[in-house]
Amino acid sequence: MPELDLVAAIRRLLPEPPGRVLRPPGDDAAVVRARALAITSLDTVVEGVHFSRATHSPADIGHKAAATALSDLAAMGAEPGEAYASLALPADLPEAEALALVEGMAGVCRRHGTALAGGDVVRSGILVITVAVTGWADSEDELAGRDGARPGDLVGVTGALGASGAGLLVIAGEADAVDADTVRALADAHRRPEPRLLAGRGLARSGVSALIDLSDGLATDARHLAAQSGVALELELEALPLAGGVAAVAEAAGRDARELAATAGEDYELLFTVPAGRWEAAGDAARQAGCAVTRLGVVLPGGGVILRDARGRALEGLRGYEHA
Amino acid sequence: MPELDLVAAIRRLLPEPPGRVLRPPGDDAAVVRARALAITSLDTVVEGVHFSRATHSPADIGHKAAATALSDLAAMGAEPGEAYASLALPADLPEAEALALVEGMAGVCRRHGTALAGGDVVRSGILVITVAVTGWADSEDELAGRDGARPGDLVGVTGALGASGAGLLVIAGEADAVDADTVRALADAHRRPEPRLLAGRGLARSGVSALIDLSDGLATDARHLAAQSGVALELELEALPLAGGVAAVAEAAGRDARELAATAGEDYELLFTVPAGRWEAAGDAARQAGCAVTRLGVVLPGGGVILRDARGRALEGLRGYEHA
Repeated sequence: MPELDLVAAIRRLLPEPPGRVLRPPGDDAAVVRARALAITSLDTVVEGVHFSRATHSPADIGHKAAATALSDLAAMGAEPGEAYASLALPADLPEAEALALVEGMAGVCRRHGTALAGGDVVRSGILVITVAVTGWADSEDELAGRDGARPGDLVGVTGALGASGAGLLVIAGEADAVDADTVRALADAHRRPEPRLLAGRGLARSGVSALIDLSDGLATDARHLAAQSGVALELELEALPLAGGVAAVAEAAGRDARELAATAGEDYELLFTVPAGRWEAAGDAARQAGCAVTRLGVVLPGGGVILRDARGRALEGLRGYEHA
Repeated sequence: MPELDLVAAIRRLLPEPPGRVLRPPGDDAAVVRARALAITSLDTVVEGVHFSRATHSPADIGHKAAATALSDLAAMGAEPGEAYASLALPADLPEAEALALVEGMAGVCRRHGTALAGGDVVRSGILVITVAVTGWADSEDELAGRDGARPGDLVGVTGALGASGAGLLVIAGEADAVDADTVRALADAHRRPEPRLLAGRGLARSGVSALIDLSDGLATDARHLAAQSGVALELELEALPLAGGVAAVAEAAGRDARELAATAGEDYELLFTVPAGRWEAAGDAARQAGCAVTRLGVVLPGGGVILRDARGRALEGLRGYEHA
């Protein structure tokens, strides 16, 4: 199918953009009415590295590409605005699958008030999807970075952890003794993580001192936050909130559930630090966005992440994978 | 080399971002002080499709990726702002080559006042580079799209055409009888096209009715402009301004020079339409940006592109390649 026909088919399946998008797809670039601050990130997912066409449907792949990028806006507290997608498509990918991929992407965008406002479609030897997202804010007060954690702050996390990592285990057939409903739920959590955009905005506005999304896993992302803030994070492994089914999958796979939850990435929950006096406000903000929050530990002077087990021993060498 | 070390090395070689970039690379997303309108595009170049590592140096590839994206801002008349780069890198690409690629990209950005403000680095089976660019404008009056051409308008083009296509022929060894200086100049034109950002802004503000960059070749891009404006473009093939050496290369390769210039893409010159009364103002604006302009024809009612040869005959079937 010629490139331009595919582009036209993609445009037909996208909803009418909102009024702030003054020039929609079709021109050399999109023109969007801006607010005071533009918050921009881009993320790439690559066949054979971040997903496999054997285990991810085209819609899963599109979902994942968009969710990964939007999660960066959640981690800043930005209000989502527009997404721009680059689709590098193998010649053997049928048109229907390319369109299903765009629909998966458009679904995430729609649920989070994001307009798919432009993109590029090119041929490629392997499937590579890049999504650039722009969010908006009226002032820096509305946002939170990775660099504001201070000794004495409390450390919290939204939602529950380990579902994506456990999902990857069940997809790989490494946890066969688990019931079918759990398998389905966890595989779905791995394939279709939902970015925490509302919770991110709520947390940032409630006065958290630092905020990051858990894409690479708690152990690694906590290190990123600690490094950018110039502090240490001391976390209690036993406090980790486990997603439903993670304990059963970990047992079936011969893994420690909390270590799995601390090191497997792609849960896209939010890790935050907050002055003790604002803990309640942060929790309220997250709960209003439909997220539980759990206290994981405290911020200390120094550097790095100290993960303590139930007996207070520091675990060495626990780290998530780098988002490669 | 671990991902994070490469990211750190990339950050070290980038210049300090300008003051409008409130949060530079290192956080989940960049935060930039906005102006009234954000103009955004993204472009992807893929190994084996848009370039070959055998004929393009890493710096050439980085240059090409950034220039292609920035040219879309030129085609809107936007003032360049920020670029965000996704590097999907094969494991066998040495660190030094990855850094040379970023330097090639950063060089184009620097020359055009664009801050490389963020990105993503991932592993990939093949080299795929996506660059998203955001430019800014204070009002829609400053911009020009593809859709404003009206019957009676004149059609013009900046600079000279065919250098990139002729460069591709000499790189492929299809024009051996040409002198070494010409070979070098044309190969360089193919590998390092410079986007026409200043000329684009000048043309848009001078009141052109439509504007597009020549990425896919005049024949194809003129059709895009005609389609978006709902008009026909009648162009005189003999009027095409040939870049130096194109005639010699075309002769050596047994090709018609003006057909080559009309169909080979990647010159990144600007095609524009303008009401007759503003032709002089448009030319002045382009010349102030260092570009000659040449009148190619007129806008007519109808649709499509009519390319006439020296005897006034309409040539059929002449089209550039789709930017695949």
